[in-house]
Amino acid sequence: MSITTVGLDADDTLWHNETIFRLTQDRFVTLLAEHADHATLMARLAETEKRNLRLYGYGVKGFTLSMIETAMELTGGEAPAAVVREILAAGREMLAHPVETLPGVDQALAELSESYRLVLITKGDLLDQERKLAASGLGDLFAAIEIVSEKDRQTYDRVFARHGTGADEAVMAGNSMKSDVLPALAAGAWAVHIPYFITWAHEVAEAPASHKRYGALSNICELPGWIAARC
Amino acid sequence: MSITTVGLDADDTLWHNETIFRLTQDRFVTLLAEHADHATLMARLAETEKRNLRLYGYGVKGFTLSMIETAMELTGGEAPAAVVREILAAGREMLAHPVETLPGVDQALAELSESYRLVLITKGDLLDQERKLAASGLGDLFAAIEIVSEKDRQTYDRVFARHGTGADEAVMAGNSMKSDVLPALAAGAWAVHIPYFITWAHEVAEAPASHKRYGALSNICELPGWIAARC
Repeated sequence: MSITTVGLDADDTLWHNETIFRLTQDRFVTLLAEHADHATLMARLAETEKRNLRLYGYGVKGFTLSMIETAMELTGGEAPAAVVREILAAGREMLAHPVETLPGVDQALAELSESYRLVLITKGDLLDQERKLAASGLGDLFAAIEIVSEKDRQTYDRVFARHGTGADEAVMAGNSMKSDVLPALAAGAWAVHIPYFITWAHEVAEAPASHKRYGALSNICELPGWIAARC
Repeated sequence: MSITTVGLDADDTLWHNETIFRLTQDRFVTLLAEHADHATLMARLAETEKRNLRLYGYGVKGFTLSMIETAMELTGGEAPAAVVREILAAGREMLAHPVETLPGVDQALAELSESYRLVLITKGDLLDQERKLAASGLGDLFAAIEIVSEKDRQTYDRVFARHGTGADEAVMAGNSMKSDVLPALAAGAWAVHIPYFITWAHEVAEAPASHKRYGALSNICELPGWIAARC
């Protein structure tokens, strides 16, 4: 069984993302500090995000709208205009934030692209993800880009059929057990978990430690060697 | 030269969309009526949208954020919380709005799908467009769905190469001269303009009346006949 295709997640696998969300959350908590304590603010924001996920999906714009909505709820519907303005500005800054690739990414992808077809498979906002890929300078290494609204078994089936030689001969690598690893294994692909130092609460899941197509790495620079060892 | 593939725009080609934006704009104007006159409100909102297009792209979430930002600007940064809450609610209602297909669409697409590969090619928000397609009940008629951040010549080149037999043997149909017709013709495809009764200001462009691959129809039910006549 040879591996022909490597699927790669983007946010927190190739570049920093969650840290930027966390910084903005901290700013949100500071802005509303007089209305509720830290734990309440975080819990209410997470509730609003979860409730809105079906309508807004993933990404900065939905997160910004959810922050404004939470601010309204926590102030009895009377959030000061200055708070709303600050949240709007924070959202715009997130979208304009420079893209910083994670250590080892450039080297690992350059090496992988010599032997395999690389496919970027990511959730999130279409325009924002395209912008980040362009800013990362990694775009030319990918044979295909798939920005999807959900990462489930069907998604990996479809993407690896379209851009490769099927899930059976593909490996998916990413920082989310729930979105990158488990559904890719379910589709019959190999899957590698490369954790980021923080994980969004919605993305936590248990490792399929005993699955024979599963691998756990601590850094993306180990990925070319891991794949080569499967062949 | 035979046509094998039919690209179709979604918003205002298959279902109502711009009317929902207009209704929300009217609501926005009413909300802020004491702060500026109708023309000023519309002009400032259009300015904000245009300024934010690079960051927010197309879709309801970016439009909602731009409405809040415009409300702040027009009130000297002090928009009443009630106004912000109303705008948030309007955005959520737009996203949850039922999808109403345009007259003749179901019949025309059923007929076309018997002879051609249908590809949905649309800008806008990934999740929102997927939701609308699912709600329209038209999803099964399409061989492929492409939700793109920009509709330029390269987009049509790529999409018709990936899902069909190249732009040369494809026709693109939509309500926007600027996004659906002109770049598809530039890519070497056929292109058909089917106007909606209102057009977003950013999408206005002149008809390429003398182009021999261009057609102008008044209703989508004329599309199967028009295509058949090219063969």
